Amino acid sequence: MKILVGYKGVNVGKDLLKIALAHAKAFNGEVLIVTSMVGGGKSEQSKVQDAEENLEKAKNYFDDQGVSCKTHLLVRGLDAGEDLVNFATEKGVDEIIIGIKSRSKVGKLIFGSTAQAVILQAECPVLSVK
Amino acid sequence: MKILVGYKGVNVGKDLLKIALAHAKAFNGEVLIVTSMVGGGKSEQSKVQDAEENLEKAKNYFDDQGVSCKTHLLVRGLDAGEDLVNFATEKGVDEIIIGIKSRSKVGKLIFGSTAQAVILQAECPVLSVK
Repeated sequence: MKILVGYKGVNVGKDLLKIALAHAKAFNGEVLIVTSMVGGGKSEQSKVQDAEENLEKAKNYFDDQGVSCKTHLLVRGLDAGEDLVNFATEKGVDEIIIGIKSRSKVGKLIFGSTAQAVILQAECPVLSVK
Repeated sequence: MKILVGYKGVNVGKDLLKIALAHAKAFNGEVLIVTSMVGGGKSEQSKVQDAEENLEKAKNYFDDQGVSCKTHLLVRGLDAGEDLVNFATEKGVDEIIIGIKSRSKVGKLIFGSTAQAVILQAECPVLSVK
Protein backbone atom coordinates (compact mmCIF):
# COMPACT_ATOMS: atom_id res chain seq x y z
CA MET A 1 0.00 0.00 0.00
CA LYS A 2 1.47 3.30 -1.17
CA ILE A 3 0.02 6.41 0.45
CA LEU A 4 0.66 9.86 -0.99
CA VAL A 5 0.26 12.81 1.37
CA GLY A 6 -0.25 16.20 -0.26
CA TYR A 7 1.65 18.47 2.07
CA LYS A 8 1.71 22.24 2.22
CA GLY A 9 4.00 22.81 5.17
CA VAL A 10 4.62 22.16 8.79
CA ASN A 11 2.16 24.67 10.26
CA VAL A 12 -0.88 23.17 8.58
CA GLY A 13 -2.17 19.68 8.55
CA LYS A 14 -1.07 18.29 11.87
CA ASP A 15 -4.12 16.04 11.81
CA LEU A 16 -3.19 15.23 8.23
CA LEU A 17 0.09 13.63 9.27
CA LYS A 18 -1.52 11.94 12.27
CA ILE A 19 -4.16 10.31 10.08
CA ALA A 20 -1.65 9.43 7.38
CA LEU A 21 0.40 7.70 10.07
CA ALA A 22 -2.63 5.73 11.29
CA HIS A 23 -3.40 4.62 7.72
CA ALA A 24 0.21 3.69 6.98
CA LYS A 25 0.33 1.58 10.13
CA ALA A 26 -3.04 -0.09 9.54
CA PHE A 27 -2.15 -1.03 5.96
CA ASN A 28 1.53 -1.63 6.69
CA GLY A 29 2.15 0.87 3.93
CA GLU A 30 4.77 3.33 2.84
CA VAL A 31 4.26 7.08 2.73
CA LEU A 32 5.22 9.58 0.04
CA ILE A 33 5.03 13.14 1.34
CA VAL A 34 4.69 15.48 -1.59
CA THR A 35 4.78 19.26 -1.84
CA SER A 36 3.94 20.78 -5.19
CA MET A 37 5.17 24.23 -6.24
CA VAL A 38 4.68 25.83 -9.61
CA GLY A 39 8.20 27.24 -9.65
CA GLY A 40 9.79 30.18 -11.39
CA GLY A 41 10.44 33.69 -10.13
CA LYS A 42 12.98 35.06 -7.70
CA SER A 43 10.77 34.83 -4.61
CA GLU A 44 10.63 31.09 -5.11
CA GLN A 45 14.16 30.51 -3.84
CA SER A 46 13.31 30.94 -0.16
CA LYS A 47 10.01 29.11 -0.63
CA VAL A 48 11.82 26.10 -1.99
CA GLN A 49 14.12 26.09 1.01
CA ASP A 50 11.16 26.38 3.42
CA ALA A 51 9.37 23.55 1.63
CA GLU A 52 12.44 21.33 1.84
CA GLU A 53 12.79 21.98 5.55
CA ASN A 54 9.10 21.28 6.16
CA LEU A 55 9.30 18.03 4.22
CA GLU A 56 12.32 17.03 6.30
CA LYS A 57 10.38 17.64 9.52
CA ALA A 58 7.43 15.62 8.24
CA LYS A 59 9.78 12.80 7.28
CA ASN A 60 11.22 12.77 10.80
CA TYR A 61 7.69 12.37 12.16
CA PHE A 62 7.20 9.14 10.21
CA ASP A 63 10.77 7.92 10.73
CA ASP A 64 10.30 8.25 14.50
CA GLN A 65 7.28 5.96 14.24
CA GLY A 66 9.08 3.41 12.15
CA VAL A 67 6.99 4.05 9.05
CA SER A 68 8.75 4.01 5.68
CA CYS A 69 8.62 7.51 4.20
CA LYS A 70 10.00 9.40 1.24
CA THR A 71 9.64 13.08 0.44
CA HIS A 72 9.25 14.75 -2.93
CA LEU A 73 9.31 18.41 -3.80
CA LEU A 74 7.68 18.86 -7.18
CA VAL A 75 8.54 21.98 -9.17
CA ARG A 76 7.22 21.15 -12.59
CA GLY A 77 5.24 24.23 -13.55
CA LEU A 78 1.90 22.53 -12.94
CA ASP A 79 -1.07 23.40 -10.78
CA ALA A 80 -0.81 21.58 -7.47
CA GLY A 81 -3.89 19.44 -8.11
CA GLU A 82 -2.79 18.24 -11.54
CA ASP A 83 0.76 17.79 -10.28
CA LEU A 84 -0.26 15.58 -7.34
CA VAL A 85 -2.62 13.47 -9.46
CA ASN A 86 0.01 12.93 -12.17
CA PHE A 87 2.66 12.06 -9.62
CA ALA A 88 0.32 9.61 -7.87
CA THR A 89 -0.32 7.87 -11.18
CA GLU A 90 3.40 7.77 -12.03
CA LYS A 91 4.19 6.18 -8.68
CA GLY A 92 1.24 3.76 -8.63
CA VAL A 93 -0.18 5.23 -5.43
CA ASP A 94 -3.09 3.42 -3.75
CA GLU A 95 -4.46 6.26 -1.66
CA ILE A 96 -4.02 10.04 -1.59
CA ILE A 97 -4.49 11.98 1.63
CA ILE A 98 -5.07 15.73 1.44
CA GLY A 99 -5.99 18.49 3.83
CA ILE A 100 -9.03 20.64 3.10
CA LYS A 101 -8.92 23.64 5.31
CA SER A 102 -9.47 26.49 2.89
CA ARG A 103 -11.68 29.26 4.16
CA SER A 104 -13.22 32.14 2.28
CA LYS A 105 -12.56 35.75 3.30
CA VAL A 106 -15.63 35.67 5.54
CA GLY A 107 -14.44 32.53 7.27
CA LYS A 108 -16.75 30.08 5.53
CA LEU A 109 -15.21 26.69 4.80
CA ILE A 110 -14.83 26.34 1.05
CA PHE A 111 -13.47 23.82 -1.34
CA GLY A 112 -9.96 24.66 -2.44
CA SER A 113 -9.43 24.12 -6.15
CA THR A 114 -6.47 21.82 -5.47
CA ALA A 115 -8.58 19.54 -3.28
CA GLN A 116 -11.40 19.48 -5.84
CA ALA A 117 -9.03 18.64 -8.67
CA VAL A 118 -7.36 15.85 -6.71
CA ILE A 119 -10.64 14.28 -5.55
CA LEU A 120 -12.19 14.36 -9.02
CA GLN A 121 -9.18 13.40 -11.10
CA ALA A 122 -7.21 10.94 -9.00
CA GLU A 123 -7.30 7.34 -10.13
CA CYS A 124 -7.26 6.09 -6.53
CA PRO A 125 -9.40 6.87 -3.46
CA VAL A 126 -8.75 10.25 -1.84
CA LEU A 127 -9.00 10.85 1.90
CA SER A 128 -9.90 14.43 2.85
CA VAL A 129 -8.80 15.56 6.29
CA LYS A 130 -9.81 18.79 8.04
CA MET B 1 -12.81 2.29 14.32
CA LYS B 2 -16.31 3.03 13.04
CA ILE B 3 -16.62 3.41 9.28
CA LEU B 4 -19.74 4.88 7.71
CA VAL B 5 -20.40 4.05 4.07
CA GLY B 6 -22.77 6.37 2.24
CA TYR B 7 -24.60 3.94 -0.01
CA LYS B 8 -26.94 4.66 -2.92
CA GLY B 9 -27.72 1.18 -4.07
CA VAL B 10 -26.38 -2.10 -5.27
CA ASN B 11 -25.72 -1.10 -8.88
CA VAL B 12 -23.32 1.69 -8.02
CA GLY B 13 -20.26 1.73 -5.87
CA LYS B 14 -18.93 -1.77 -6.20
CA ASP B 15 -15.46 -0.33 -5.66
CA LEU B 16 -16.95 1.58 -2.77
CA LEU B 17 -17.80 -1.60 -0.89
CA LYS B 18 -14.50 -3.22 -1.85
CA ILE B 19 -12.53 -0.33 -0.44
CA ALA B 20 -14.72 -0.06 2.64
CA LEU B 21 -14.03 -3.74 3.26
CA ALA B 22 -10.27 -3.24 2.93
CA HIS B 23 -10.40 -0.35 5.40
CA ALA B 24 -12.58 -2.24 7.87
CA LYS B 25 -10.16 -5.16 7.78
CA ALA B 26 -7.02 -3.00 8.08
CA PHE B 27 -8.42 -1.09 11.06
CA ASN B 28 -10.30 -4.05 12.51
CA GLY B 29 -13.33 -1.79 12.37
CA GLU B 30 -17.08 -2.04 12.10
CA VAL B 31 -19.08 -0.78 9.15
CA LEU B 32 -22.31 1.22 9.10
CA ILE B 33 -23.91 1.18 5.65
CA VAL B 34 -26.23 4.12 5.37
CA THR B 35 -28.72 5.12 2.71
CA SER B 36 -30.39 8.50 3.05
CA MET B 37 -33.75 9.30 1.50
CA VAL B 38 -35.66 12.50 1.93
CA GLY B 39 -38.98 10.68 2.25
CA GLY B 40 -42.57 11.68 1.58
CA GLY B 41 -44.72 11.14 -1.48
CA LYS B 42 -46.38 8.04 -2.88
CA SER B 43 -43.56 7.05 -5.20
CA GLU B 44 -41.32 6.65 -2.19
CA GLN B 45 -42.92 3.38 -1.10
CA SER B 46 -41.20 1.24 -3.72
CA LYS B 47 -37.97 3.21 -3.38
CA VAL B 48 -37.86 2.42 0.33
CA GLN B 49 -38.30 -1.26 -0.43
CA ASP B 50 -35.54 -1.16 -3.07
CA ALA B 51 -33.23 0.63 -0.66
CA GLU B 52 -33.87 -1.94 2.06
CA GLU B 53 -33.12 -4.79 -0.32
CA ASN B 54 -29.92 -3.11 -1.52
CA LEU B 55 -28.77 -2.54 2.04
CA GLU B 56 -29.42 -6.18 2.83
CA LYS B 57 -27.25 -7.26 -0.13
CA ALA B 58 -24.47 -4.94 0.97
CA LYS B 59 -24.68 -6.32 4.49
CA ASN B 60 -24.32 -9.85 3.15
CA TYR B 61 -21.14 -8.79 1.37
CA PHE B 62 -19.54 -7.75 4.66
CA ASP B 63 -21.03 -10.64 6.65
CA ASP B 64 -19.49 -13.10 4.19
CA GLN B 65 -16.07 -11.56 4.88
CA GLY B 66 -16.53 -11.69 8.64
CA VAL B 67 -16.68 -7.90 9.03
CA SER B 68 -19.14 -6.48 11.57
CA CYS B 69 -21.77 -4.50 9.69
CA LYS B 70 -25.03 -2.69 10.41
CA THR B 71 -27.37 -1.03 7.92
CA HIS B 72 -29.40 2.13 8.36
CA LEU B 73 -32.05 3.57 6.09
CA LEU B 74 -32.49 7.23 7.00
CA VAL B 75 -35.76 8.90 6.05
CA ARG B 76 -35.65 12.08 8.04
CA GLY B 77 -36.58 14.76 5.53
CA LEU B 78 -32.99 15.97 5.18
CA ASP B 79 -30.68 16.41 2.22
CA ALA B 80 -28.46 13.34 1.89
CA GLY B 81 -25.27 15.25 2.68
CA GLU B 82 -26.58 16.85 5.85
CA ASP B 83 -28.26 13.59 6.85
CA LEU B 84 -25.07 11.52 6.52
CA VAL B 85 -22.95 14.09 8.37
CA ASN B 86 -25.44 14.36 11.24
CA PHE B 87 -25.76 10.61 11.51
CA ALA B 88 -21.97 10.19 11.51
CA THR B 89 -21.69 12.66 14.38
CA GLU B 90 -24.51 10.97 16.31
CA LYS B 91 -22.80 7.62 16.00
CA GLY B 92 -19.25 8.84 16.67
CA VAL B 93 -17.99 7.67 13.29
CA ASP B 94 -14.21 7.81 12.63
CA GLU B 95 -14.26 7.74 8.84
CA ILE B 96 -16.87 8.27 6.14
CA ILE B 97 -16.54 6.61 2.75
CA ILE B 98 -18.53 7.96 -0.17
CA GLY B 99 -18.72 7.37 -3.87
CA ILE B 100 -18.22 10.28 -6.24
CA LYS B 101 -19.34 9.24 -9.64
CA SER B 102 -21.61 12.07 -10.69
CA ARG B 103 -21.31 13.10 -14.29
CA SER B 104 -22.75 16.12 -16.02
CA LYS B 105 -25.05 15.78 -19.03
CA VAL B 106 -22.04 15.97 -21.34
CA GLY B 107 -20.26 13.22 -19.45
CA LYS B 108 -17.82 15.38 -17.54
CA LEU B 109 -17.07 14.21 -14.02
CA ILE B 110 -18.55 16.72 -11.60
CA PHE B 111 -18.81 17.12 -7.90
CA GLY B 112 -22.16 15.97 -6.60
CA SER B 113 -23.63 18.29 -3.98
CA THR B 114 -23.97 15.41 -1.52
CA ALA B 115 -20.27 14.55 -1.78
CA GLN B 116 -19.28 18.21 -1.41
CA ALA B 117 -21.45 18.67 1.65
CA VAL B 118 -20.12 15.52 3.30
CA ILE B 119 -16.45 16.32 2.62
CA LEU B 120 -16.74 19.91 3.84
CA GLN B 121 -19.02 19.38 6.83
CA ALA B 122 -18.06 16.01 8.28
CA GLU B 123 -16.18 16.09 11.56
CA CYS B 124 -14.07 13.09 10.56
CA PRO B 125 -11.93 12.29 7.50
CA VAL B 126 -13.85 11.44 4.33
CA LEU B 127 -12.64 8.94 1.77
CA SER B 128 -13.88 9.60 -1.79
CA VAL B 129 -14.03 6.60 -4.08
CA LYS B 130 -14.66 6.65 -7.82
